[in-house]
Amino acid sequence: MEDGPVNLREFQELAKRNLPKMYYDYISGGAEDQFTLRENVEAFQRIMLRPRILVDVSKIDMSTTLLGYNMSSPILVAPTGSQQLAHPQGELATARAAAACNTIMVFKRRDVSATLLQRAERNGYKAIVVTVDTPRLGRREADEKNKMIIPRNSNLEGLMSVDADLTGGSKLEAYASETLDPSLSWKDIEWLKSITKLPIILKGIITAEDARKAVDAGVSGIVVSNHGGRQLDYTPPTISVLEEVVKAVSGAVPVLLDGGVRRGTDVFKALALGAKAVMIGRPVVYGLAANGEHGVRSVIKMLQNELELTMALAGCPTLRDITRNHVMINHERPRSLL
Amino acid sequence: MEDGPVNLREFQELAKRNLPKMYYDYISGGAEDQFTLRENVEAFQRIMLRPRILVDVSKIDMSTTLLGYNMSSPILVAPTGSQQLAHPQGELATARAAAACNTIMVFKRRDVSATLLQRAERNGYKAIVVTVDTPRLGRREADEKNKMIIPRNSNLEGLMSVDADLTGGSKLEAYASETLDPSLSWKDIEWLKSITKLPIILKGIITAEDARKAVDAGVSGIVVSNHGGRQLDYTPPTISVLEEVVKAVSGAVPVLLDGGVRRGTDVFKALALGAKAVMIGRPVVYGLAANGEHGVRSVIKMLQNELELTMALAGCPTLRDITRNHVMINHERPRSLL
Amino acid sequence: MEDGPVNLREFQELAKRNLPKMYYDYISGGAEDQFTLRENVEAFQRIMLRPRILVDVSKIDMSTTLLGYNMSSPILVAPTGSQQLAHPQGELATARAAAACNTIMVFKRRDVSATLLQRAERNGYKAIVVTVDTPRLGRREADEKNKMIIPRNSNLEGLMSVDADLTGGSKLEAYASETLDPSLSWKDIEWLKSITKLPIILKGIITAEDARKAVDAGVSGIVVSNHGGRQLDYTPPTISVLEEVVKAVSGAVPVLLDGGVRRGTDVFKALALGAKAVMIGRPVVYGLAANGEHGVRSVIKMLQNELELTMALAGCPTLRDITRNHVMINHERPRSLL
Amino acid sequence: MEDGPVNLREFQELAKRNLPKMYYDYISGGAEDQFTLRENVEAFQRIMLRPRILVDVSKIDMSTTLLGYNMSSPILVAPTGSQQLAHPQGELATARAAAACNTIMVFKRRDVSATLLQRAERNGYKAIVVTVDTPRLGRREADEKNKMIIPRNSNLEGLMSVDADLTGGSKLEAYASETLDPSLSWKDIEWLKSITKLPIILKGIITAEDARKAVDAGVSGIVVSNHGGRQLDYTPPTISVLEEVVKAVSGAVPVLLDGGVRRGTDVFKALALGAKAVMIGRPVVYGLAANGEHGVRSVIKMLQNELELTMALAGCPTLRDITRNHVMINHERPRSLL
Repeated sequence: MEDGPVNLREFQELAKRNLPKMYYDYISGGAEDQFTLRENVEAFQRIMLRPRILVDVSKIDMSTTLLGYNMSSPILVAPTGSQQLAHPQGELATARAAAACNTIMVFKRRDVSATLLQRAERNGYKAIVVTVDTPRLGRREADEKNKMIIPRNSNLEGLMSVDADLTGGSKLEAYASETLDPSLSWKDIEWLKSITKLPIILKGIITAEDARKAVDAGVSGIVVSNHGGRQLDYTPPTISVLEEVVKAVSGAVPVLLDGGVRRGTDVFKALALGAKAVMIGRPVVYGLAANGEHGVRSVIKMLQNELELTMALAGCPTLRDITRNHVMINHERPRSLL
Repeated sequence: MEDGPVNLREFQELAKRNLPKMYYDYISGGAEDQFTLRENVEAFQRIMLRPRILVDVSKIDMSTTLLGYNMSSPILVAPTGSQQLAHPQGELATARAAAACNTIMVFKRRDVSATLLQRAERNGYKAIVVTVDTPRLGRREADEKNKMIIPRNSNLEGLMSVDADLTGGSKLEAYASETLDPSLSWKDIEWLKSITKLPIILKGIITAEDARKAVDAGVSGIVVSNHGGRQLDYTPPTISVLEEVVKAVSGAVPVLLDGGVRRGTDVFKALALGAKAVMIGRPVVYGLAANGEHGVRSVIKMLQNELELTMALAGCPTLRDITRNHVMINHERPRSLL
Repeated sequence: MEDGPVNLREFQELAKRNLPKMYYDYISGGAEDQFTLRENVEAFQRIMLRPRILVDVSKIDMSTTLLGYNMSSPILVAPTGSQQLAHPQGELATARAAAACNTIMVFKRRDVSATLLQRAERNGYKAIVVTVDTPRLGRREADEKNKMIIPRNSNLEGLMSVDADLTGGSKLEAYASETLDPSLSWKDIEWLKSITKLPIILKGIITAEDARKAVDAGVSGIVVSNHGGRQLDYTPPTISVLEEVVKAVSGAVPVLLDGGVRRGTDVFKALALGAKAVMIGRPVVYGLAANGEHGVRSVIKMLQNELELTMALAGCPTLRDITRNHVMINHERPRSLL
Repeated sequence: MEDGPVNLREFQELAKRNLPKMYYDYISGGAEDQFTLRENVEAFQRIMLRPRILVDVSKIDMSTTLLGYNMSSPILVAPTGSQQLAHPQGELATARAAAACNTIMVFKRRDVSATLLQRAERNGYKAIVVTVDTPRLGRREADEKNKMIIPRNSNLEGLMSVDADLTGGSKLEAYASETLDPSLSWKDIEWLKSITKLPIILKGIITAEDARKAVDAGVSGIVVSNHGGRQLDYTPPTISVLEEVVKAVSGAVPVLLDGGVRRGTDVFKALALGAKAVMIGRPVVYGLAANGEHGVRSVIKMLQNELELTMALAGCPTLRDITRNHVMINHERPRSLL
């Protein structure tokens, strides 16, 4: 570690220093009162760890699988839009960093079509992530004040092939479709299934009711997400509803979590509460703004290192050793000290 | 949206800038420690939303009915006194804005009499709102320090007819009687019923006990209200007792809520917990102080727009789709993160 | 109300301005971390009121009885030491003010003896209040830093007779013995009972266990008190344990409360939770420091007026109308908004 | 008391003033977000005391026994590394102060071997404390920023014999082994038992699961510790899990507590919740930094005096009088005022 950041939060400060206010506000902001934005992070801090001692932790193995594909760690890069606001190389730099860290990156596209999906299949993309919490755009008031206009991602097409080159065929290549069509409904998921063989993952589910519907609809995975607090304010922090969704799904499909992950201990907590993996969004963009591809790499590596140390100190040499019993939520304390 | 306020809170700041301190203190202040004043707003922030996904929300319908009359949205203007402190046009401007927004305005009168009620019936008023939490005036200490004297509303009579002109016969015209007679009792409600055919709504009930009495007394509606925290300090925030009242009433009469509503998400929460509609008081006066009739219009429109977006993002195309299950109070979280 | 204080808290600010730091620190300070000092006040703020409407409150009666004596209100002056630090006239001024407000004042003596008690009986004193939470002096760190030495109350003897003159025989004249004898035990209460016919009240009980022992020992009353947070830090705020003591006593003797009362709503809350009356200590001394006898009078009157208004706004014309059901503690809310 | 510190917290301020920032940060810091560091202290402040009155407390006896040895008070000096950072005399000064206060000091060594243990037995050491929460070093970010390098404790060997001289044979001489070997496991405890007759105490257990394993492994004692919040962040504060461990052990071996003890009331609370004794770490080092041996002596004496006064004010003349019923945790309050 040079004189640079020692944790993910410090990347945010660097990003704030490097970016025009309008862009920083756009990236960092949340909807309306920003309750959910703050809570996503703070809810993690109300979960405690129950480490076990005298376990041989000389070797830590963070590897896992998702939809049959091997991953070196349970940390993915979430789809985030307009990364060129953060750095001229934008998604390209992020893709290179993700590849260097053996991490899966989820790309963002808005123009889903049968043609595009067929091309995605041909290009080695392994799954479709459909973002389902944006029938309309949430209200970020700083953006209204700044008169922020989101630029068109004109070069995304190019990035797709570049990324395919970078990553080879060895990793799951997810692809996120975030639509603003307010008429989108469960029927459209049926349609999507009918036109692609790629597994479909729904991103933006935070209730047991919808989780059950998703399983019934035949999806292959769920991402518990509230869009980083950017859409509907006062949705609960994702980590607080993860277990509700995990129980509703009861093992039928993998459940991922997105929102508020800033520490290796956060990843550990999400896994203990049933997540198969987590996605990080803003920290990656902050790394990009701080130092381009190298910054993104630092962010991902830092989080992987923190998770590895957490597993060692908690007495969990592999991800399978992490159980529900390794975390404690306030109300579970035998002597709840409020 | 111009460079003006982007939310209701910012109207309060504008009002503070525009008004003499004595007037601003009078309008914005609460009783004694101002606990209830603050809690009315903050209690909303402890309720979370449980949105549903993949519902067709391309059309949002906010219309509802109250006492048989149609309303374009479940948002009413609460009776607030001395609006001329906020703007020279006072209630007149508010009435025009309310009419322009298709919103019901509740007027405030102190001199209830058989004669007045008969005239109200003739003038097209559709209901009597009796404020029952003011047997005596609460203590606002800033007003004591400012030696604030509330001016007489000498021109209210005139306003009544003006308003009748403005609104036509298409809307419910409520009329609030706030009496300072400390001997007022349930017998007076009987008397009131005997001299008018207008439905009677009691404003200021916050317990199940009184809600049941009100239903037994034959009232046509209840407004859960603590007078905006201006009367008895340390009464609970209205949103926290709404459900107690709703359950006690068990559907016999509509229950409205007043106090602390500042966001479309707040309106949504109140409806989910059983309110038929909400009343907004201070925000309207802040809008008036900020920019007269136009300011009031912005306040009402803003809240309507926020409610509409909230319904879309929560997957509720109509008010009937909003259920108790769309909100979650802290202690209900499956894994309560305190 | 002139330009003076509008609530009891503002008297504290005046006292701070008027007194040498060393004296103010001594009067206002608490033991060690001052947790109990703060909590005594703040715990009241976590109790909410459940007012009832449409009750005739044109006449409010605050009178009550204690040990068979009539009191104009359920507010007494607690024994506090060294009032001459606050004002040259000290206890004399306080006694005059208490008499003018028809309030009982509890005097403080350390040299209890059979002779003194006999003289007290002759002088019309009606009860002995034994302070039982001071086997040794608590640690007030500000006093240690200030090298504060408590002056001897050499003229207390004189004050006793003066006070007897002032108050006549119409009121209960309590008399507090605060001993620093660490060997004091329940046997000494037996001894005290054997040498005086005056009823004995124990001040400083905060557990059900000791409350039951006190009743068994034949005392005539209990004061729930933690010595204003000046003795053992981290004792619970008195209002939070009042109900535990009241239940243990189950009506055998009256229970009073001391500590943290600053508002009429606080008095109301204590009564609703089972107290027969409350004692105020520091506010009286602050009033004394602010403006001598007149200041004390203002403090007592202000609290009486606030209680009277609270009763009116809560729909309780007499003290008997105040029930457990008129208050709500956080965990009792039907929908507990934490 | 001179013009010096009046409580343990003030020693920390003195230490901060006296030490280079790099050293102060190293001593005072915790892992990552420092949640556990803060909570260790603050969790004590959420426990309340239930004192009993009218108990003869003219004589307070704080003596106890541990592993059959007499101790003058239930307060030990925890093993802390690199005390020479705080003061040139380092462990030597601390050892002298501990001896002067009749307190047991636990030394820190990393190079455990059969030879060393045999020498320890010969030198009168009475127990081995094995620190089990450091398979790897926790991340203190201030240290990373400061590029802090921990100096080698080259003169520890010498200190051991010096200390043996100072303390004579009358006290339990504990000896802590803190290893960074990540492969350390329960088998190594077996090995340790096979090569020494000294009783083995495990330091760093915070779950019932591990406490039961420790008893099964035949250890002679347990120290509930999270390494002062320096290892795995977000472990619960030790006082909050003490009772879980005490119950799991159910009297088989003594349980000690380490972490966050800053007040005599804290010691009292730990004993009431089942600890046999407590260890203090940082406060001793702060005393050392503030004023060398004399500072350490003041710290220990101050805490002993505070415990003695707490016992007197709580009505507990001996440690055996302190029961679970003398403390109350928030959720146990009959009327839980959150």
